[in-house]
Amino acid sequence: MPLLIDIRKLTVINRLIKEGSESVADSLSTLAGVDASVEIKSLSFVQPGDIPTEMGTGEIYSARVRLAEPPYGVFMMTFSTETAAEIAQLMTGMDVESEFTQLHESALQEMCNILTSGFIDGIANTLETTIDMGTPTIEQAQAMTVADDALSHVRRDSLTIVLDSLVDIADSDVAFSLRIFLVPDPGSFVHLIDQLDRDAETGEPTSVDSPDAKELDTSSEVQAFEDAFDGS
Amino acid sequence: MPLLIDIRKLTVINRLIKEGSESVADSLSTLAGVDASVEIKSLSFVQPGDIPTEMGTGEIYSARVRLAEPPYGVFMMTFSTETAAEIAQLMTGMDVESEFTQLHESALQEMCNILTSGFIDGIANTLETTIDMGTPTIEQAQAMTVADDALSHVRRDSLTIVLDSLVDIADSDVAFSLRIFLVPDPGSFVHLIDQLDRDAETGEPTSVDSPDAKELDTSSEVQAFEDAFDGS
Repeated sequence: MPLLIDIRKLTVINRLIKEGSESVADSLSTLAGVDASVEIKSLSFVQPGDIPTEMGTGEIYSARVRLAEPPYGVFMMTFSTETAAEIAQLMTGMDVESEFTQLHESALQEMCNILTSGFIDGIANTLETTIDMGTPTIEQAQAMTVADDALSHVRRDSLTIVLDSLVDIADSDVAFSLRIFLVPDPGSFVHLIDQLDRDAETGEPTSVDSPDAKELDTSSEVQAFEDAFDGS
Repeated sequence: MPLLIDIRKLTVINRLIKEGSESVADSLSTLAGVDASVEIKSLSFVQPGDIPTEMGTGEIYSARVRLAEPPYGVFMMTFSTETAAEIAQLMTGMDVESEFTQLHESALQEMCNILTSGFIDGIANTLETTIDMGTPTIEQAQAMTVADDALSHVRRDSLTIVLDSLVDIADSDVAFSLRIFLVPDPGSFVHLIDQLDRDAETGEPTSVDSPDAKELDTSSEVQAFEDAFDGS
């Protein structure tokens, strides 16, 4: 499977994140009647094996969905129990006492649907495609269990994009922090990005456009690889 | 030029940034006697053409150095005139009035040397190499001029890694924000990352380990690749 990406195309990842967050803000406004700004505070790349470390410890909420279309893989949001309560309260207008009511539960599910589909739609738009997905599964569990569940269907060598985002609700003191994990199938993800640039620019793939520094890699396999594109 | 990177190796970029900031904190402590935490608040990838946008407008300070060894390219920090004054004050113990004294100037230069060499050393350690560099050039100028100067020797299609960092000085209210631009030569950068994984894991290059990936980069073969993918 082709897992090689032109390093200069990493700028696409910025666009994915930007479009994803803008689309979340749009969805919140249209579907939940909530005006909010969605800011990505940090981006990092980890291996799936590092996801448990990223999640920390203790009881957390997660909303997880498997993508049924390219780039496949898993999309997951995690947030604290305090954030879950804030969301439930915001959406229902009713305080959370010791336990969530059924109304609180559905409000939380609804918000997770909006956030998830908003983000995935933004990514899909950037990639000039659609990404079909089901309803995210909400779970409250120990961070470790959440990590295990999320990873059960993920290739161990996948790339995981981790985003810390802040959803700041307008005209209120409410702002919730969500951690987003995007674990696409690496081959499918690379293919989509490759496809995107080919379509957008010249109609041709752009990853091997300059012949000048081919001598940089010296191992025999690399040489063979370069020979293969000398003819292009 | 081999500009293709295995997408799963992007995790190396995280390590570069982590080691870079830890090394800056170490240098501050050893060379300036200042205990500080260095936190990276955000990471993004932009094209060199987008650097002016990242810099904003108005008068800023920049400290810029060209790397004389792989990954070559440019390392630059930018910061506000307020931050420059805070640094000068911190290092000299003397308030900045309307103008910098010569002592303030040298203190600022010294701090930029420490920050720059700290960061580059951290990157070099991660890449298991050394990176020779000169003394950074400090300049106070309009953001646009700084961007032009920085880009004059940079390939227009390079990848630029942009980091927002916060250097928080211990036992004080002083914390300064620095924006870091790392614009390596893309071919050299990919080669270093490739090399790193080869050494660390199997002793073999891992970037061209599957024969099908070799075909990825010739336009006529993209269709062949897609067909092959359909059948997989």
